Amino acid sequence: MAAIPTDLLDLLERPLYAHLATTRPDGTVQVSPMWFDWDGERLRFSITTTRQKYRNVQSHPHVAASISDPENPYRFLEVRGVVEEIEPDPSSPRRADHPVLHQDMIAHLNKHMARVVPAAIE
Amino acid sequence: MAAIPTDLLDLLERPLYAHLATTRPDGTVQVSPMWFDWDGERLRFSITTTRQKYRNVQSHPHVAASISDPENPYRFLEVRGVVEEIEPDPSSPRRADHPVLHQDMIAHLNKHMARVVPAAIE
Repeated sequence: MAAIPTDLLDLLERPLYAHLATTRPDGTVQVSPMWFDWDGERLRFSITTTRQKYRNVQSHPHVAASISDPENPYRFLEVRGVVEEIEPDPSSPRRADHPVLHQDMIAHLNKHMARVVPAAIE
Repeated sequence: MAAIPTDLLDLLERPLYAHLATTRPDGTVQVSPMWFDWDGERLRFSITTTRQKYRNVQSHPHVAASISDPENPYRFLEVRGVVEEIEPDPSSPRRADHPVLHQDMIAHLNKHMARVVPAAIE
């Protein structure tokens, strides 16, 4: 695992969002802002199994995230890594608890967490 | 050329920066914040020929840019497109004007503009 420079660690610990770049099944890139969690070792992104980004990380598990300081855009962190595992989001309601499913609940049920292991930092 | 939604056009016209995602020669993604210009048809990024991003767009001309509203991160624009041309940056000093080159001048001389044609907007 690549070490995060200590002087930029706040960018992972503050409630900022990352611009997550993934590769589409056809090999072209895609990037959009996403909230994330940092547990000290892994970046965790909440992704929905019905969305393009989920299909992307299944076909191409290498991803990259760019996080910049809102007060100083020259101060930023790029984390490149590999999606280690995609697991059901524990904060998402379980199907059994919701026998009558509305569209927004289904969207919620499809939420998974993608764990990204940092491999390179710039 | 894909049309930019008029209600998000300000994100291209304001002095914001884009998180530009490119693909490295080995096929993995890279993303970092960059200033850009928008001329109404093309996104223009200033890139340095000695840097990784230049090598990336030469091997993989498909790129994606994510630009979000600093006041509202849920308001964002993703532009995917193809680098149409990489041309010398007209704002960069010419070699002939600087017979004695210092390292920072050389870096300046290597600056080129990559013109990106929007192909898909999300």
